[in-house]
Amino acid sequence: MNILIVGLGLIGASLAKTLKKNTSHRVLGWNRTETVTIRALGDGVIDETGSLQELIPKADITIINFYPEAIIPFIIDNKDLFKRHSIVTDSCGIKTKICRTLEKENFDFYYIGGHPMAGREVSGYDNSLDTLFDNASFICTPLENTPRQKTDALVGLAQEMGFARTVVTTPEHHDEMIAFTSQIAHVLACSYVLSPLAPQHAGYSAGSYRDVSRVARINADMWTQLFLDNKEPLVREIDDLVNNLNKFRESIMNDDKKNLHDLMEKGNRIKEEIG
Amino acid sequence: MNILIVGLGLIGASLAKTLKKNTSHRVLGWNRTETVTIRALGDGVIDETGSLQELIPKADITIINFYPEAIIPFIIDNKDLFKRHSIVTDSCGIKTKICRTLEKENFDFYYIGGHPMAGREVSGYDNSLDTLFDNASFICTPLENTPRQKTDALVGLAQEMGFARTVVTTPEHHDEMIAFTSQIAHVLACSYVLSPLAPQHAGYSAGSYRDVSRVARINADMWTQLFLDNKEPLVREIDDLVNNLNKFRESIMNDDKKNLHDLMEKGNRIKEEIG
Repeated sequence: MNILIVGLGLIGASLAKTLKKNTSHRVLGWNRTETVTIRALGDGVIDETGSLQELIPKADITIINFYPEAIIPFIIDNKDLFKRHSIVTDSCGIKTKICRTLEKENFDFYYIGGHPMAGREVSGYDNSLDTLFDNASFICTPLENTPRQKTDALVGLAQEMGFARTVVTTPEHHDEMIAFTSQIAHVLACSYVLSPLAPQHAGYSAGSYRDVSRVARINADMWTQLFLDNKEPLVREIDDLVNNLNKFRESIMNDDKKNLHDLMEKGNRIKEEIG
Repeated sequence: MNILIVGLGLIGASLAKTLKKNTSHRVLGWNRTETVTIRALGDGVIDETGSLQELIPKADITIINFYPEAIIPFIIDNKDLFKRHSIVTDSCGIKTKICRTLEKENFDFYYIGGHPMAGREVSGYDNSLDTLFDNASFICTPLENTPRQKTDALVGLAQEMGFARTVVTTPEHHDEMIAFTSQIAHVLACSYVLSPLAPQHAGYSAGSYRDVSRVARINADMWTQLFLDNKEPLVREIDDLVNNLNKFRESIMNDDKKNLHDLMEKGNRIKEEIG
C-alpha cells in the first residue's frame, strides 16, 4: 500500500519511521515546513514527497498528524483529492468531536478516528523515534457506517507496525478513558508544579516528585485544544479527583485513622489488581 | 566505627548493604523477627548480631528503621544503653514531631533526625538493594543543641555511603518539603485510582497513567502515621493542589482559552526551569 503521512512532527515522523522499519509499504510524506520534508526524504524516513495534489490521490491510507483544530478543515478542504474507498485517519488525542462532525459529510473515502497512544515531553521531527510505539496501544474509533473490512485494514496495519495492543471502540468511550488516563494527568502535573514550594524541591525530591511532575512539560497550544474539545469528560474527572482528595483532607483534619487507612488500603488494592 | 542498624526491612537492610558495599565500618544488625537477622548475618549484610543489650552500647552510630510511632518509644526505652556521645538517628519520613519531642529529653548521646530519601513499592528484607540510595538525597535535621561536629559526622557517613546529595535543614522545613515532594504524590495516586474508570484503563493508558498511579501501591499502616504526624503541611499542600485544579476546571468550563493556556504555559515554564 501507499501510506501518506501528513505532518512530520514527533508523531508523524515516528509513524513513518515505524512503517519503514516494520513494514514494506511505500511511505509518502508531506509537511507544511518543506525543509523538514526534504530532511525526512534524505534520512530515508519517507520514500516520496510532492504537493498535496500529487500525493493525496495516490494514498491507500492517509494519516493526518495535526493539532486537533486543523484536522477537520484539512479533510474538508481536500475531500475531492482522496482516493475513492481509501482510508483517512488521524493521530490526535480526542475523537468524539472529529468523528461526529465528519460523520455528517458525504465522502467516497472512509474516515476512521485513530489514536496511537504515545508521546514524549519533547516534540518535532528531531525527537521522533522508530521505537516510540513499541509498547503502545493503537486505538481506533470507526464511524457508525464504517465498513468492518476498513476498520480491520487499519487495525491490521497497526499490528503490522508493531503496536503492542489494538483497541476498537466508540469515540465517546475513547474520550472518556483518555480524560482519565492522560488528560487529568497533565492537569495534575501542571497544578502540582504551581505549588509555591516547587522551586525548592531539589534535595527533597525522589521518584514521586519526578513521576507526578513529568508531564508538566506540556505543549500548551495543543493541550488547550484537546481539553476544550473534551470538556465534559475532563471536568467529570477533575471533580472526581477533587472529591477524593477532599476525602483524604477530611480524614487527616479529623485524625480519622480508620478512614484514612481505608482510603489508602482501597487505593493500594485497586492498583495491585489493575496494574 | 560500629554502625548499628535496628530494623532490617527494606530501608534498614538497604542501608546495611550500602554500608558493606561502600564503607569499611563494622555493621551490627538487629531485627524484631529473628529469622531475618539470621538471614542477614548469613548473607553477609551485617557483621554481627546479638541482643539489644549487647549491641546498643557498642554502636558509634545507631540508625533506627521503624514505623514513625515506634521511634520515640524505642529511644526512650533504651536511653541508658546508648554509648555516651554516640549518634542516634532514624530513617522515617517525618521529622518535626520526633525531633521536637526528643529535644526535651536529657540524653548523654546525640539524636539527629535522618531521612534517606528512597523507597520502593515493595517492602521487607527480600526487596532491599545495595543500590537503593545511588541517586538519593540524605537529609538530616539536627536539634537546636546538636554539636556541629556530630552533624558533620553523620553527613560524612552519608557521603561515604554514596548518597548523591546531603541536605542539613530544620525538621519543620523538611516536613513542609516532604509534604510537597512525597506525601501529596501518595495522596494523589490513591485519589486517582479511586476513579470509577480506573479498572478499565488497560488499552487506554500509557506513561502518564503509569507514572501518576505508581505510588498508589502504598503501605497503608505506615503512611497513615506519616500523614497524621504531618497534618498541617500536608493539608496546606492538598488545599493548594485543589485550588489549582479548580483554576483548570473554571477555565475549561468557561471555554477560557487564554487562561487555560496561561496556566499550562506557566506550569511548563516552571518544570523546564526547576527540573
